[in-house]
Amino acid sequence: MVALRLPALTSIFTSSSAAAVRSPPAIFPLKNRLRLPIRRPFTANSTAEKVVAPEVGDGKGKVVDKEKDRVITPRSQDFNAWYLDVIANAELADYGPVRGTMVIRPYGYAIWEAIQFIPYSFIEKEASHVEGFSPELALVTVGGGKELEEKLVVRPTSETIVNHMFTQWIHSYRDLPLMINQWANVTRWEMRTKPFIRTLEFLWQEGHTAHATAEEAEKEAMQMIDVYTKFAYEQAAIPVIAGRKSRVETFAGASTTYTIEAMMGDRKALQAGTSHNLGQNFSRAFGTQFTDENGQRQHVWQTSWAISTRFVGGIIMTHGDDSGLLLPPSLAPVQVVIVPIWKKESEKTGVLTALSSVKETLQAAGIKVKIDDSDQRTPGWKFNYYEMKGVPLRIEIGPRDVSSGTVVISRRDVPGKQGKVFGISMEPSVLVAYIKDKLDEVQSSLLERATTFRDSNIVDVYSYNELKEAIAQGKWARGPWSAGDEEELKVKEETGATIRCFPFEQPEGPKKCLMTGNSAEEVAIFAKSY
Amino acid sequence: MVALRLPALTSIFTSSSAAAVRSPPAIFPLKNRLRLPIRRPFTANSTAEKVVAPEVGDGKGKVVDKEKDRVITPRSQDFNAWYLDVIANAELADYGPVRGTMVIRPYGYAIWEAIQFIPYSFIEKEASHVEGFSPELALVTVGGGKELEEKLVVRPTSETIVNHMFTQWIHSYRDLPLMINQWANVTRWEMRTKPFIRTLEFLWQEGHTAHATAEEAEKEAMQMIDVYTKFAYEQAAIPVIAGRKSRVETFAGASTTYTIEAMMGDRKALQAGTSHNLGQNFSRAFGTQFTDENGQRQHVWQTSWAISTRFVGGIIMTHGDDSGLLLPPSLAPVQVVIVPIWKKESEKTGVLTALSSVKETLQAAGIKVKIDDSDQRTPGWKFNYYEMKGVPLRIEIGPRDVSSGTVVISRRDVPGKQGKVFGISMEPSVLVAYIKDKLDEVQSSLLERATTFRDSNIVDVYSYNELKEAIAQGKWARGPWSAGDEEELKVKEETGATIRCFPFEQPEGPKKCLMTGNSAEEVAIFAKSY
Repeated sequence: MVALRLPALTSIFTSSSAAAVRSPPAIFPLKNRLRLPIRRPFTANSTAEKVVAPEVGDGKGKVVDKEKDRVITPRSQDFNAWYLDVIANAELADYGPVRGTMVIRPYGYAIWEAIQFIPYSFIEKEASHVEGFSPELALVTVGGGKELEEKLVVRPTSETIVNHMFTQWIHSYRDLPLMINQWANVTRWEMRTKPFIRTLEFLWQEGHTAHATAEEAEKEAMQMIDVYTKFAYEQAAIPVIAGRKSRVETFAGASTTYTIEAMMGDRKALQAGTSHNLGQNFSRAFGTQFTDENGQRQHVWQTSWAISTRFVGGIIMTHGDDSGLLLPPSLAPVQVVIVPIWKKESEKTGVLTALSSVKETLQAAGIKVKIDDSDQRTPGWKFNYYEMKGVPLRIEIGPRDVSSGTVVISRRDVPGKQGKVFGISMEPSVLVAYIKDKLDEVQSSLLERATTFRDSNIVDVYSYNELKEAIAQGKWARGPWSAGDEEELKVKEETGATIRCFPFEQPEGPKKCLMTGNSAEEVAIFAKSY
Repeated sequence: MVALRLPALTSIFTSSSAAAVRSPPAIFPLKNRLRLPIRRPFTANSTAEKVVAPEVGDGKGKVVDKEKDRVITPRSQDFNAWYLDVIANAELADYGPVRGTMVIRPYGYAIWEAIQFIPYSFIEKEASHVEGFSPELALVTVGGGKELEEKLVVRPTSETIVNHMFTQWIHSYRDLPLMINQWANVTRWEMRTKPFIRTLEFLWQEGHTAHATAEEAEKEAMQMIDVYTKFAYEQAAIPVIAGRKSRVETFAGASTTYTIEAMMGDRKALQAGTSHNLGQNFSRAFGTQFTDENGQRQHVWQTSWAISTRFVGGIIMTHGDDSGLLLPPSLAPVQVVIVPIWKKESEKTGVLTALSSVKETLQAAGIKVKIDDSDQRTPGWKFNYYEMKGVPLRIEIGPRDVSSGTVVISRRDVPGKQGKVFGISMEPSVLVAYIKDKLDEVQSSLLERATTFRDSNIVDVYSYNELKEAIAQGKWARGPWSAGDEEELKVKEETGATIRCFPFEQPEGPKKCLMTGNSAEEVAIFAKSY
């Protein structure tokens, strides 16, 4: 083991930050914000304590609607600043010491873990439909560093390495289809970085398959974009639009690229996952061949597909609001937080006993629950804190609740009194059913809200002028398109928007290209994107 | 997404390997072996089919003791060749396209996954003993690549990044102790590489802690080496020797390094895990300070500790034999393989029905079981294949077994008839109890065997001559030592052996340094190592 000593970095780090931490300015200059020590709202010295109004402690938590903590920039005021504030304050990630890198913190990593496991089960399920298909977890490792004789590249994606191995592993049609899948880190030299959305190094899942026929590869590429679509809708509550990329936007090396495009809260598009039909492009380059049933050597047909930690950014920017993060229950590391409320020492024992009994009940039912019974924070502080962390449901238990054998439940997605229900019985079967029901409600309500938002921000356009106007308004434009690459690049240059996809769901009837007036077979969606 | 195009690498890959694959030489020249396509023993074209003797199919599997497949170099003949053969043939890993890298295959990765999850539960458990301690999963990401202004290093270990973050996260004694843990990949520029043991890039678990006092840090460092020791004994069945490194062998940047040292089948030592008390070395370099209870600023006291995919190599080289891999049941991805035996089509249905009923019974009991009912391979081929893969137990079910409602069970660690038991009832409660019992037996028998081997290869020495003799015989030498760094380096130069550790378990009574004759407080263990 060798110690890493980097005097240059060390000197950056040693600038003492104590003073800055003790009295953080209300809003840091944006440029420096994440270079400076992350603001720690809700510490003893921060303004957050002010949130705790005197009414707190009556078991009704009225405070939440009152004076708001302003450490998070309002979303409507500056979407980018809001995004960075949420990431810092919900403790999802910090900037790393190297430009363009981030350090994913445990809470952010827990979301990524939830994302990991759910699509994996899909992959497994889908894979089992294919005879002889093994959904394998392989980890490809490639050394970084450099040798003088030969330049090495730190893995930006693994098609080349995979093909090298496929060439060794595939001999005959009996070895096909072959699938490998890895959860790995990759590195891209990005100039404009943004946490979770675009960083020098990020985590992703990448799958690679090889098939005996073009048809099978096409089916696989489509199947995987379906898996991602289903995951986005059902788990992340993000109503993505699935479709095919234009030739200009197709992955270099792919015959066809399928994509899911999500609309963020600022109406910019986020490419949230892709699936590529690689045809024989890589197999021809690498000589990845198999002997078919007639004894002939043929090149394999391939696909690759990936989703990355960028999806975490997509969740933040789809559901988050001025109170911070808002997590879909399916992916929330904590689905329910329980906060005790008591004033007199004599009330404490009863409340805490009820608290742990409720916790056990919910845990036994498979609900991810957390108690915050620390004495150092007021209930009002805790309400705000877990709202900012995006926990979908909050249970409050005070002395009156203990007497009546009930609890108070608040929904994160419905602020204030409207989202608050009193007097729900602590009786296990009642409570569990109620909580599960509410989690489902939050989940569907998030999807519904995002779908409404998306649909109200997609404009059907029939001319280039209409397209320009829609884009200028910050919306997505959907219109018939059969023009060429040059026209597409012209749109990009003049409006900043690109073709996000030709959606799979197409309107019926004859169409005329919005640019050329020629007949068009499909509509395309244009939007500015991350 | 950007395609990685590396013409230099591509040209290496495209050399067609089809011919070589079709008729592999019995043994490849060692140097080229893993550069060439991995030999695929047990394919239709290989010599492995010869193993299947005519007796196969009678439900008693006598073949296994007969003509042996010689694709694996005997361990006694060439330990290194044997090691590489096992890795290739048990499909644990292949060499990657870049010198010194490997591609971990699903079976090898499954072992690493088993290693991951078990120590994690230990870590969690230990951590919960410490008030306020959070066993967090943080993933530190650092961009590779290079900027012209500033040289970047691809992460070889994360102390520097961790300290950068700790400096932001730690303010007062209330923030301590702090623990982060990550499962990540790291890169080292190694000249002499060997799969799992030393590769340019490898996977590991690294933990980092910060404490308010020197005592707490020391306690933590010791606690973690205990966790690793317990894991090695109880899960990997490797009787490691735990102790303290000499000053010469201490991790650069640490005050003290604790280690677990394992004896491989060739009697070389493998450093299988380390835990460092870092003192205030890093916190002083990075200015990682906290305000103590008296309002004074102090530097934190730190530890770090790691185990890596090297542990997989340790398992192979501790338990493997001439038949291939031998996995301890606790870490085996497949604990029991079930092989059906039938000759006539009329027998098939009965056998396969019994097979899946036995599988369900075992699975329901939490046993990791796999059926191999493929028609393409004979039972004899399968016996050899799963022995090579190190599966601890095999169940055979033939028509006679179906009639009698029993199965045949073979232990991987006891070859031939001795390890084979007939007539075990298929009745679920009987079978499950029997299998669990046998798995426990295999587990303890592996540990016992390795312990006996270890102890018979450690020699107590009282002079430098005795030490030299022991090392020359390929053994470990244990003797009193109080000499200086220079003498230690002299031993290394003259014998090739280093001090592996001052073991925690020390003989009682007065001692005299084997080198200087001065009084010594401790014995040290000397050995050649990986």
